[in-house]
Amino acid sequence: MRCTRCRGQEACLEIRRHNAAYCEDCFLGFFRDQVTRAIEHDKMFRRDEPVLVAVSGGKDSLALWDVLLEMGYDTAGFYIGLSIPGYSEPSREKCEVFAEARGARLITVDLEEEYGLGIADTAQRTARAPCSACGLSKRYLFNKVAMDNGYRVIATGHNLDDEAATLFGNVLRWQTGYLGRQAPVLPEEEGLVKKVKPLYRLAERETAAYAVLRGIDYIVDECPMSRGAKSLLYKDLLNQLEAASPGSKQSFLLGFLDKARPLFHEQEEVELHPCERCGQPTTTPICAFCRLRDEVSRPRRPRGGRRRGGRSGPRESAAAAASGGPPPAGLVIPLTSVES
Amino acid sequence: MRCTRCRGQEACLEIRRHNAAYCEDCFLGFFRDQVTRAIEHDKMFRRDEPVLVAVSGGKDSLALWDVLLEMGYDTAGFYIGLSIPGYSEPSREKCEVFAEARGARLITVDLEEEYGLGIADTAQRTARAPCSACGLSKRYLFNKVAMDNGYRVIATGHNLDDEAATLFGNVLRWQTGYLGRQAPVLPEEEGLVKKVKPLYRLAERETAAYAVLRGIDYIVDECPMSRGAKSLLYKDLLNQLEAASPGSKQSFLLGFLDKARPLFHEQEEVELHPCERCGQPTTTPICAFCRLRDEVSRPRRPRGGRRRGGRSGPRESAAAAASGGPPPAGLVIPLTSVES
Repeated sequence: MRCTRCRGQEACLEIRRHNAAYCEDCFLGFFRDQVTRAIEHDKMFRRDEPVLVAVSGGKDSLALWDVLLEMGYDTAGFYIGLSIPGYSEPSREKCEVFAEARGARLITVDLEEEYGLGIADTAQRTARAPCSACGLSKRYLFNKVAMDNGYRVIATGHNLDDEAATLFGNVLRWQTGYLGRQAPVLPEEEGLVKKVKPLYRLAERETAAYAVLRGIDYIVDECPMSRGAKSLLYKDLLNQLEAASPGSKQSFLLGFLDKARPLFHEQEEVELHPCERCGQPTTTPICAFCRLRDEVSRPRRPRGGRRRGGRSGPRESAAAAASGGPPPAGLVIPLTSVES
Repeated sequence: MRCTRCRGQEACLEIRRHNAAYCEDCFLGFFRDQVTRAIEHDKMFRRDEPVLVAVSGGKDSLALWDVLLEMGYDTAGFYIGLSIPGYSEPSREKCEVFAEARGARLITVDLEEEYGLGIADTAQRTARAPCSACGLSKRYLFNKVAMDNGYRVIATGHNLDDEAATLFGNVLRWQTGYLGRQAPVLPEEEGLVKKVKPLYRLAERETAAYAVLRGIDYIVDECPMSRGAKSLLYKDLLNQLEAASPGSKQSFLLGFLDKARPLFHEQEEVELHPCERCGQPTTTPICAFCRLRDEVSRPRRPRGGRRRGGRSGPRESAAAAASGGPPPAGLVIPLTSVES
């Protein structure tokens, strides 16, 4: 099959939802066009604004950082060490090698060393789902580290599949608050930096293809702690739908943003104020991140004790967290914290 | 496992979303309770109101008629002959046998004999999806026949699975108009009878179990013309979800009705007036049913000609129709016509 863009080269990647197939060069052009469209159409950031890119070592976030560097944006990477055995070390290395090869700045924070919150250990100590503790901590640090380092924009690598799966989870439970807040851009507010998702128009296989074609060495494995998370089930179901009807995911997400989100967005405002301990915005006196630290530093409860949250086991809580499900009371940064 | 209701008998049916398992008697009681709850909670009809029950010969509609008869409601059945080879004849017989055994009145209309619109033939002649022609014709006749026979309420056998699948289809495309109109009760309006779905709280396997336990002889096969319809794919995906997380379908549908539908319901009113030919309510001068009849009575177009509707083949149109997708312009009874 010929490339539908240049008509000269052999196509290497078919994109059924666009009814297109591209050669390598044209695919990279298509990828950049979609990122440009997201940045410009959704007014994510200007040419002269420095952007902090949250990187995990996976294909999405490294592809995002790569394409922004290629396009000449002023970026630094931000990696959070999560202390997940067998996963965190290689993922940190991928980020470091990537940054060094490009002469780019990488800011690193280690959750365990700096806050005593290694994810595997935190999950065990609090009987909280790993994805819940991880999501809470990331949201907190994205904002704090961006502010502390003078960045007014943080970009994450959420792709179309991530966003569609989050939307699916929120729609299945009609989480109207989350639905009102799910967007490719969450604007800057008092104490909160702007959050943007420049890859939201690109499917997971496209970010993977981009990373491969660009020679990016990324960590291929899924996080071992996400096993059983509902977000993976939602992705699987949406993939079946997409196979039967290409374009379903995109029309689901973009249709939502266009037609339904405005209806959900008119929610009552939540009053934010600084956490009494750390100063980050929260709805409760002490923010959820500081409370998580308290919880972890308490002595362990005896084994066999009742788990918090009644019947909901770790898998269900993990799923809820991964899909933007119910957060614990007093969530850090509630108005803009819904990450997919 | 013991029945969770009477604690005496062995349970024969587990209902995971209710965390319950029932013996035969208690299951039938549960079934009736759910129907009663729907009728009373949603103010579907009063004890003294005669109700026309649309029956297809399948488990849902015959279970509905049976439970309403058992509960002492004043009902008649309404069967539409669709002239689907190998399917319509046995399904009509099931309805006739059912009605005769209970001494109940069955009103029958044959689409082909009375309107020249046998579904298989109509689909072929108009290159319209069978589900589209069928849905349009049923909506038209439900209203017309109810009015002509003095019924102010028509009840259909849509169950939880049907409604959840329709909702899924409407949400995937964010059909905001359809979302505003999807409800277990569509109120009476000028020229339109009330439409109700008393089984919307009961899953498909529960209506099947009810029919079996009550000794109802129903047609087991799916309509042969629905093959490839998207509604079947949606049901399959929702079944996978339900298996992983019992209660998902119910919370998806009930959460929508409770929290999201009101947001979509505030749509602009559509002006209805009588069709110039048949007098039924429509938004266009001639209603879609009368136009369908015109279309069928025209000479056949030559083979190999371009199909109407551009690239959309019959399967896609069928899917759209089955899932409450885009109707043709000037749909008959547009304000209340969204059937699952």
